[in-house]
Amino acid sequence: QSVLASQKSLRHRKPCKHFELYYHDILFNGTNAANATSTKVANQSLPGNFNFGMLVVFNDPITKDNHLLSPPIARAQGLFFYNKKDDYNAWFAFTLVFNSSQHKGTINIMGADLMAEETRDFSVVGGTGDFFMTRGIATIRTDTLQGAYYFRLKMDIKLYECY
Amino acid sequence: QSVLASQKSLRHRKPCKHFELYYHDILFNGTNAANATSTKVANQSLPGNFNFGMLVVFNDPITKDNHLLSPPIARAQGLFFYNKKDDYNAWFAFTLVFNSSQHKGTINIMGADLMAEETRDFSVVGGTGDFFMTRGIATIRTDTLQGAYYFRLKMDIKLYECY
Amino acid sequence: QSVLASQKSLRHRKPCKHFELYYHDILFNGTNAANATSTKVANQSLPGNFNFGMLVVFNDPITKDNHLLSPPIARAQGLFFYNKKDDYNAWFAFTLVFNSSQHKGTINIMGADLMAEETRDFSVVGGTGDFFMTRGIATIRTDTLQGAYYFRLKMDIKLYECY
Repeated sequence: QSVLASQKSLRHRKPCKHFELYYHDILFNGTNAANATSTKVANQSLPGNFNFGMLVVFNDPITKDNHLLSPPIARAQGLFFYNKKDDYNAWFAFTLVFNSSQHKGTINIMGADLMAEETRDFSVVGGTGDFFMTRGIATIRTDTLQGAYYFRLKMDIKLYECY
Repeated sequence: QSVLASQKSLRHRKPCKHFELYYHDILFNGTNAANATSTKVANQSLPGNFNFGMLVVFNDPITKDNHLLSPPIARAQGLFFYNKKDDYNAWFAFTLVFNSSQHKGTINIMGADLMAEETRDFSVVGGTGDFFMTRGIATIRTDTLQGAYYFRLKMDIKLYECY
Repeated sequence: QSVLASQKSLRHRKPCKHFELYYHDILFNGTNAANATSTKVANQSLPGNFNFGMLVVFNDPITKDNHLLSPPIARAQGLFFYNKKDDYNAWFAFTLVFNSSQHKGTINIMGADLMAEETRDFSVVGGTGDFFMTRGIATIRTDTLQGAYYFRLKMDIKLYECY
């Protein structure tokens, strides 16, 4: 059996790195440009109540605790869009950008945000700098949702390949 | 020679998982909201005949056979856009979302849809749940194209890393 | 210690493949359709000077040297958008498509383009054909910037997993 056996036991391993983060998104509402961290690139285009087609580009602060005003330890740069007719549901692709004395580097992430589920898993598909070539899972949970213009996610990042 | 030899022989291995799927896309045309599974987020913006710049967001049913009305075994959630001046050509990023008694989890995919080729290869860049950390190749083929509002792809998914 | 030790020494290895490329982007300005290789899909939507929210779809020629008119050895197909309020900063996802006698296949890339840094690292998250299942790092550097409608990047691609 080769070293590259196709059935590996990584699933039951502990992550090589594991940390929790909070992600804050403040959508531009026409008047909050100073505070906004994201903006609609396209409006909903399929009729209905759940924003199907609305696409948002973001540069969102990431904090260690759930306080919006805590010092950001990273930024999440990317996009999401809503894509369901009968419920809220989204799709994300983004980069966590770390640039502090503790961590320098990026983590690249993509996946479906199945908002009807309490937790949802994205794929960590790569990384750079301190996170060189990493892979893993980012589990998210909606921590709060305040109207249409602020939401906060709790992100639990488990890296299973570290180099 | 290290375990992580840079030249590995995965290429000639059999996939650890292999399955075929059909992907159905019904574009919103202004009057078919009940049936539509995708919607234009941006219209073509570069003049010409091949939709360069048209961007579509989708939540498309995935079936085991080529019948649109077969029970979906997954959804494909993501986006594509056209990006060629002198022919149809697209770029895709999406997540296959499985939520059945047989499979729970997601597969994350991206790549260029070189529509002039009979088959095109996307990268499977990650997975979650039953597809934890998977990687591989998704080969697609246009199965049918019915005007501007319905197309069907045959997807041949070969996973070479399974955990 | 398992074969899949979570701390691996890939970081200090030499890449299994290493090459430099130049990426040329000519944005459609309303009158240059014949030469343009990219087009705005959405205009800036957050007020300010740095195009936050502007999203561009591209099919850009890749050359071996820095001459725009050198024969392309590949195309870069994908999207980028600007996402910062107080400086230029972008996010990219794209596929390098090789179709020559030398190379056939694709390389899939995503990451944050931290334009304030002299060099920025993207993740190579997968590949097909000659680049089957590859992973690595693409380091970019702005080689030139000519007004709002032409820029050139130097890309240094280091692949650390080759199959």
